[in-house]
Amino acid sequence: MCRWMAWLGQPVPIEELLFNTPHGIVDQALHARMGAEPTNGDGFGLGWYGHGEIPAVYRSVAPAWSDANLREIAAHVDSPLFITHVRAAIGSPVQQTNCHPFRHGRWLFVHNGYLAELAQVRRDLMLAIDPELFADVQGSTDTEVVFHLALTLGLEEDPIGALERTVGLVEAVATRHGVEGAVQGSFGVSDGEHLWAVRYATEGPARSLFASADIESVRRLYPENPRIAELTNDDRVIVSEPFADLPGAWHEIPQSSAVTVGQGGKLEHHPFTPRPPAVGISVPGAGATA
Amino acid sequence: MCRWMAWLGQPVPIEELLFNTPHGIVDQALHARMGAEPTNGDGFGLGWYGHGEIPAVYRSVAPAWSDANLREIAAHVDSPLFITHVRAAIGSPVQQTNCHPFRHGRWLFVHNGYLAELAQVRRDLMLAIDPELFADVQGSTDTEVVFHLALTLGLEEDPIGALERTVGLVEAVATRHGVEGAVQGSFGVSDGEHLWAVRYATEGPARSLFASADIESVRRLYPENPRIAELTNDDRVIVSEPFADLPGAWHEIPQSSAVTVGQGGKLEHHPFTPRPPAVGISVPGAGATA
Amino acid sequence: MCRWMAWLGQPVPIEELLFNTPHGIVDQALHARMGAEPTNGDGFGLGWYGHGEIPAVYRSVAPAWSDANLREIAAHVDSPLFITHVRAAIGSPVQQTNCHPFRHGRWLFVHNGYLAELAQVRRDLMLAIDPELFADVQGSTDTEVVFHLALTLGLEEDPIGALERTVGLVEAVATRHGVEGAVQGSFGVSDGEHLWAVRYATEGPARSLFASADIESVRRLYPENPRIAELTNDDRVIVSEPFADLPGAWHEIPQSSAVTVGQGGKLEHHPFTPRPPAVGISVPGAGATA
Amino acid sequence: MCRWMAWLGQPVPIEELLFNTPHGIVDQALHARMGAEPTNGDGFGLGWYGHGEIPAVYRSVAPAWSDANLREIAAHVDSPLFITHVRAAIGSPVQQTNCHPFRHGRWLFVHNGYLAELAQVRRDLMLAIDPELFADVQGSTDTEVVFHLALTLGLEEDPIGALERTVGLVEAVATRHGVEGAVQGSFGVSDGEHLWAVRYATEGPARSLFASADIESVRRLYPENPRIAELTNDDRVIVSEPFADLPGAWHEIPQSSAVTVGQGGKLEHHPFTPRPPAVGISVPGAGATA
Repeated sequence: MCRWMAWLGQPVPIEELLFNTPHGIVDQALHARMGAEPTNGDGFGLGWYGHGEIPAVYRSVAPAWSDANLREIAAHVDSPLFITHVRAAIGSPVQQTNCHPFRHGRWLFVHNGYLAELAQVRRDLMLAIDPELFADVQGSTDTEVVFHLALTLGLEEDPIGALERTVGLVEAVATRHGVEGAVQGSFGVSDGEHLWAVRYATEGPARSLFASADIESVRRLYPENPRIAELTNDDRVIVSEPFADLPGAWHEIPQSSAVTVGQGGKLEHHPFTPRPPAVGISVPGAGATA
Repeated sequence: MCRWMAWLGQPVPIEELLFNTPHGIVDQALHARMGAEPTNGDGFGLGWYGHGEIPAVYRSVAPAWSDANLREIAAHVDSPLFITHVRAAIGSPVQQTNCHPFRHGRWLFVHNGYLAELAQVRRDLMLAIDPELFADVQGSTDTEVVFHLALTLGLEEDPIGALERTVGLVEAVATRHGVEGAVQGSFGVSDGEHLWAVRYATEGPARSLFASADIESVRRLYPENPRIAELTNDDRVIVSEPFADLPGAWHEIPQSSAVTVGQGGKLEHHPFTPRPPAVGISVPGAGATA
Repeated sequence: MCRWMAWLGQPVPIEELLFNTPHGIVDQALHARMGAEPTNGDGFGLGWYGHGEIPAVYRSVAPAWSDANLREIAAHVDSPLFITHVRAAIGSPVQQTNCHPFRHGRWLFVHNGYLAELAQVRRDLMLAIDPELFADVQGSTDTEVVFHLALTLGLEEDPIGALERTVGLVEAVATRHGVEGAVQGSFGVSDGEHLWAVRYATEGPARSLFASADIESVRRLYPENPRIAELTNDDRVIVSEPFADLPGAWHEIPQSSAVTVGQGGKLEHHPFTPRPPAVGISVPGAGATA
Repeated sequence: MCRWMAWLGQPVPIEELLFNTPHGIVDQALHARMGAEPTNGDGFGLGWYGHGEIPAVYRSVAPAWSDANLREIAAHVDSPLFITHVRAAIGSPVQQTNCHPFRHGRWLFVHNGYLAELAQVRRDLMLAIDPELFADVQGSTDTEVVFHLALTLGLEEDPIGALERTVGLVEAVATRHGVEGAVQGSFGVSDGEHLWAVRYATEGPARSLFASADIESVRRLYPENPRIAELTNDDRVIVSEPFADLPGAWHEIPQSSAVTVGQGGKLEHHPFTPRPPAVGISVPGAGATA
């Protein structure tokens, strides 16, 4: 299990959301409440958009709670759009190249969950990645494979559609290998101007995912809270698990759905329906039988 | 909070106690049950006696559960006497020089607990360390200071007595600084032939500490257990927290007491009574007023 | 550039060859003399055979010269057969999964050199790996790909032959991609009873490689050297670069050749001739034309 | 040996001086030319002033040349004043708390050189540190001791004077212990508005130190260089060792002297004369005999 959090809104010191918020993401690294495992101590990542085309990515194998450099960066960098992730490894090594977010050009990608029986499906999925992107896969996580499949299947033009095709492809490959419950989790994506988030599981309940409510509703709930008073209509947070001090200020994102957060904090809901890859994209391993 | 474990007995593959035991020390790094904090992810240490005069010490800032090298060493090294420690840092940095066990010549030292208000008492305690040993303090933990004080006060001749004097000294310094509840914890010590363990708190209940029962009693409890069948009368384990699968096989070491484990698994109990440092050892900071 | 060293002979404390030898492998990490780069500070690995079927592997991203744990292990472990490697990364990340030696069952594998234009050929080479082994590739080095290709092509039955086929395959794939100078380097392999070493480059001079001379010749050269006096006829060392204090005690292994070291220190020379993969093994990317 | 570099001037992307300059500081980590050792691979630090009172400090035990996070930070942070340091450890462990720069409030401190026979003088020097600052010494370097002595002796009011008193104190303590050549090196200090740099050795030549020339002279030397064209009169660089591509653009700072760089790039030279600590500051160890 992992936990992630994304902010899109006014530029804020990153530490406000990482360290100064009760039960923020760094606290969730030690004491997650909504997952099977409370501890997410197998590395950390922070991607932020600032000046320049490419977002910065800081990734560390130290647990988030003890990483002195993370505190420094969070205290000295403001950003209008950033994504953080704390990792609980489930098999793949604890190394920087396995820490989220993953990056491709302007794009960042995080995931909480797993592909079932990765060792069985990994080769076929790697073959389905655009050969031009193959060498960009640096680590050994399922998430990085999913990201590069999604890039192959159009993430940069249509993020939600590309993820629907990617999940459809993974499910098809899993089925051919007799693997059940192929995909589990929530996904977060950004291009530096929007956030997209998906909640989906092939079987059973998907990992939790929440969006912050419209600021007016939150303000009515907490009329005297000074931190809320500083928020504007432009601000939106997506989280695996709500911050502890603001009950009622969150909307659960329904299973099998996705949201888009645009400039001005605008939140749109979409259904999320995995679909077989479009014609012309082969399902690896399907050659003989399809 | 931390957790530690020591083995004295027949040579065994270290992994037997670290990884192959339900709720062994590595599992306690993630899921400790008897402390205020379940997670001990701020580094790890393993000291073992083998050939040569000096014990080996492997220390890592990675959490014990994800350290690939620890699994390798534990699987390939047998030892008749080893001590392991998983750390939950409370203020001092996560770095190898702050990981237990600490070593001096043939001696190893571990600690679960703390000195209250370390920043206030650290200077005076450092001054009380034998100047010849001063430069050996490499890290910034309270434990390393306690160890070097104990060495100064005779650890190598009389471990329990030296720890009584050390705790007495720490309590005296704390009192002068208006610090309450000066010492908390359990201490483990070895010279390669014996184990000593102390359980003590200046105020309130001390950290938990257990010794394994005589092997005959354990065998009557678990007549069919194959792991127990391999144990001999020579084997003894001291732990912060019992392994999960052997209820009844442990004796709690009473507060304000100490035990010695000798060759042949012989277990002796002693009272533990902090005493003012012997004449001729000054209490730092006491010069003007005492 | 990297440097490696292998010992097969009487059991010795590993530190004798790592730290106690002038210009040994750890010194070569800082001051290599025979390569384009003097510094090999991008990680370290040590694999040793002891009790048990599987060799132990200790790998670290710290430079070998500053890794405190390496000194501990080297001082406390004796082994009759071990391989060490210091790494100078050329593109792939500094992470444990990119440190040599790589391991498969009883087999260890190290490499000094490179595959030219890895990003261009990596996908085709990965496809040629036995699908059962695909998921075992954990890192992103060229070496790990070569190792798994060699395992696919029979390393466990015929190490030199499998490496000839592997290098032949890599050269064929490189040619199809217009890549020149496909393979450069020396390779070291062990199964716990033998050592095999290969020196080869597709173009130009290959990385240096040396075997220690028969002990009688060395003894005649250094009649009074106490370290030499302890060596027996069973002892053989293979090195990228000779230790500094024993000029004349080394035989250069010729380019395009291989050696086998067997029990009793027996050294056999073989030619090394890359050959196209045997019938039935496809050259990836060759589908349309073959 | 270590190498350091400081920038005071217009805000620039930190990567310009760390990575985009031929033979910049990161290259000097691998290939220093003016020191006894070419390799400075034992950790790295970067301190920068941005928004907020306190400068940020990023410190890592990875060699600067392989630290992926350093590239990210350097590419995404602009600063008008920053100091970087690459370390070659000489005895003390490679750990973040031993990496420069050290920080106290708004102050940053770096050092290239050593205190002779640190183990012999460390205790007395630690005792001379203001007891209020004693617990702030987190690591085990000589530099951190020097910094806290200088803070004790007035660094925040008179940086050069405080360093003269500090060096005088260290020399006095060394003399009492029979240690020769007490102090060696260059020191860099900043409060966020100025830079101070000192070059001094008790005996023999001091570590090299250079200041960039006035921009007009540099421009006459390199009339067509586009990087120079972007510099203004406000910009000044202090370096252990000049960048490779600008011969003639540097002034060597004479031994036993100091410089101050103020706003607008103004450079002032001062003599540097160690002096005995002022009355009322005791020389530790001198009590009985002085």
